Amino acid sequence: MFEQIFENVRRISPLVHNITNYVTVNDCANMLLACGGSPIMADELEEAADITAVCGGLTINIGTLNRRTISAMFAAGKRANELGHPAVLDPVGAGASGLRTDTALALMKEVKFAVIRGNISEIRTLACGTGTTKGVDADAADRVTDDNLDEAVSLARDLARRTGAVIVITGAIDIAADGERAFCIRNGHAMMSAVTGTGCQLSALTAAFVTANPGQTLEAAAAAVCAMGLCGEIAYKRLTEADGNASYRNYIIDAMYRLTPAALEKGAYYEVR
Amino acid sequence: MFEQIFENVRRISPLVHNITNYVTVNDCANMLLACGGSPIMADELEEAADITAVCGGLTINIGTLNRRTISAMFAAGKRANELGHPAVLDPVGAGASGLRTDTALALMKEVKFAVIRGNISEIRTLACGTGTTKGVDADAADRVTDDNLDEAVSLARDLARRTGAVIVITGAIDIAADGERAFCIRNGHAMMSAVTGTGCQLSALTAAFVTANPGQTLEAAAAAVCAMGLCGEIAYKRLTEADGNASYRNYIIDAMYRLTPAALEKGAYYEVR
Amino acid sequence: MFEQIFENVRRISPLVHNITNYVTVNDCANMLLACGGSPIMADELEEAADITAVCGGLTINIGTLNRRTISAMFAAGKRANELGHPAVLDPVGAGASGLRTDTALALMKEVKFAVIRGNISEIRTLACGTGTTKGVDADAADRVTDDNLDEAVSLARDLARRTGAVIVITGAIDIAADGERAFCIRNGHAMMSAVTGTGCQLSALTAAFVTANPGQTLEAAAAAVCAMGLCGEIAYKRLTEADGNASYRNYIIDAMYRLTPAALEKGAYYEVR
Repeated sequence: MFEQIFENVRRISPLVHNITNYVTVNDCANMLLACGGSPIMADELEEAADITAVCGGLTINIGTLNRRTISAMFAAGKRANELGHPAVLDPVGAGASGLRTDTALALMKEVKFAVIRGNISEIRTLACGTGTTKGVDADAADRVTDDNLDEAVSLARDLARRTGAVIVITGAIDIAADGERAFCIRNGHAMMSAVTGTGCQLSALTAAFVTANPGQTLEAAAAAVCAMGLCGEIAYKRLTEADGNASYRNYIIDAMYRLTPAALEKGAYYEVR
Repeated sequence: MFEQIFENVRRISPLVHNITNYVTVNDCANMLLACGGSPIMADELEEAADITAVCGGLTINIGTLNRRTISAMFAAGKRANELGHPAVLDPVGAGASGLRTDTALALMKEVKFAVIRGNISEIRTLACGTGTTKGVDADAADRVTDDNLDEAVSLARDLARRTGAVIVITGAIDIAADGERAFCIRNGHAMMSAVTGTGCQLSALTAAFVTANPGQTLEAAAAAVCAMGLCGEIAYKRLTEADGNASYRNYIIDAMYRLTPAALEKGAYYEVR
Repeated sequence: MFEQIFENVRRISPLVHNITNYVTVNDCANMLLACGGSPIMADELEEAADITAVCGGLTINIGTLNRRTISAMFAAGKRANELGHPAVLDPVGAGASGLRTDTALALMKEVKFAVIRGNISEIRTLACGTGTTKGVDADAADRVTDDNLDEAVSLARDLARRTGAVIVITGAIDIAADGERAFCIRNGHAMMSAVTGTGCQLSALTAAFVTANPGQTLEAAAAAVCAMGLCGEIAYKRLTEADGNASYRNYIIDAMYRLTPAALEKGAYYEVR
């Protein structure tokens, strides 16, 4: 199944509009190119809806948000909804400031998202309407492991039911869930958290996968999560003793560029609950 | 000829002011350093003209433009004109939104550019005053090949005559033309389009080459295009089976850092029409 | 001493709020992760003070400043002072425009910085209240060598006395001084200046080191400078004949990821005056 989904991405080459943070934006662009998609970034209100219209999908990432870009997020999200384009929300740092929490919640009210992807702290913040995220990484006390996987699946499924979006929670174990089914995904490597923006890249990647696979949002989101994790594994194996997180960053994107649909099918490691 | 032009860049180390997008800005800065130049980025109206004044050249790149940075673009462009500093325009995504098309056209009216560099879709938009660019990459139907090279050369030459700028159109074959002569350049590799911002890097590089070679704008722009393409070729040869577009990105900049003026002279592959 | 300081960074994993330029921000984030810290970037006034409050330390870097982010710098700096969090100032390009000089000087008046780090041209501008910096690199006539080291140490020490901050001047020889003592540091490699943002990365790194070592600001700042320089040396040794400044950029961050506290202790090369 994931083979076909990834082949669609490579064949259709979805153009994705990204309103995203300036920290990891270059990696998001190169990751989109690596998977076979095409990126465009535009965050000014005057052009946001126009750019959304020429694209197939949209990613809204609230890292380094500001008043100017927030207005563009709403305009782009609403236009994507009007056009039936899938939109992905990455609520970076929701819970770390009132502005981030409020913006993410307001976006969820006014825009229908196909997928919402965050770490467990961010998703919990969205589910509860409040949070205590420390920075942009998941709280240690909060990480998804086999011990609390059931609870995290319930969280994802409940939020999926309330929002109509596929909810993706990434961590040691990743979850992609709609109201009915949950993919629990064990691809990836712990060192990915030492590279800034692997989550942001995954959100952009997810937009490409979902855009190229209409009607299969859950499967496409799960495929993107598996692909990203698998690239983290492949890249980790390339590391020499001198390589650190900067080379690892490059190798992950390289791995996506080289990944074949068949290799994704074979390497995807998940169960469906 | 290109040998001397590149030697001038290395010797003079031109300081280039860049008002550019936040997607590829880091690569533009490292590319400028790699060629022997020096970058400074500044996009706030209050300081834009001051920064232009301490530099030798200017690049205006309209990717991720916004109202605030647009005002800085006009101020910097006008100051560059007053001081006789060469200015390069990169109309990223012209044709993809009204804001980008209008801003590029307005800049061309109020600022005299030494060089305007874009893909064929963007340049066509500037020539026609309207366009249908899909995103930031050239439309497939629109790419420059031997079949439509004559037409593209005419387009470049006509726009050069109307604007007084050297027009650079990059694609499978690159063109650098003033009103009289056109360099048709066959350096480069198709994989360069899998790296975000190779066009933006070339625009910044062109500003450095033109700044270090007053009175030779066409030749300097053509030399920059050949140098960038040659680095794409050299970098491609370095790729291992595990390397993808992220490593390629690094290798292209690396190649510029290592490129000698003599190697540019020898590797430049072009004809003049 | 530096061994213990670096161990504290790795153990405490300080969360650092960065208001910084969009040119080098990704490298700052990955450098913070490489040293064992954790980055968050946020530059909107509405959330700046909130983000400062959830972090342990703050870096204010004025490269690509604008009116919006300047207001966030003041808010974050004041909150850091209220909370007793260390704040680091990187006056990128002070002297190159009135806006940069004035902003840096105003920040120094309204915020108490633990460390101020710049090149000699920038620090001289802060000390004199005016300057003639050409761009973001130190003026050639101005570089710190053995010939003018005494004078540069005096400059640093005097400014440290006036401001209460540790003053770090980086160049061929680096200086970290408070009002009493000055570390003169000879780690590093000249090629580091061919990578954009090694200074910015050092400022972010310094914030992490100082945050994890309360009461030892001077020693922590000196340790950060030694660590950065040592990584520049280690990375230089990795370079192949094909590698240039882009690979060097990655190798420097890689080296920090791999650096052990014991290796820092052994490799640090400095004298105290």
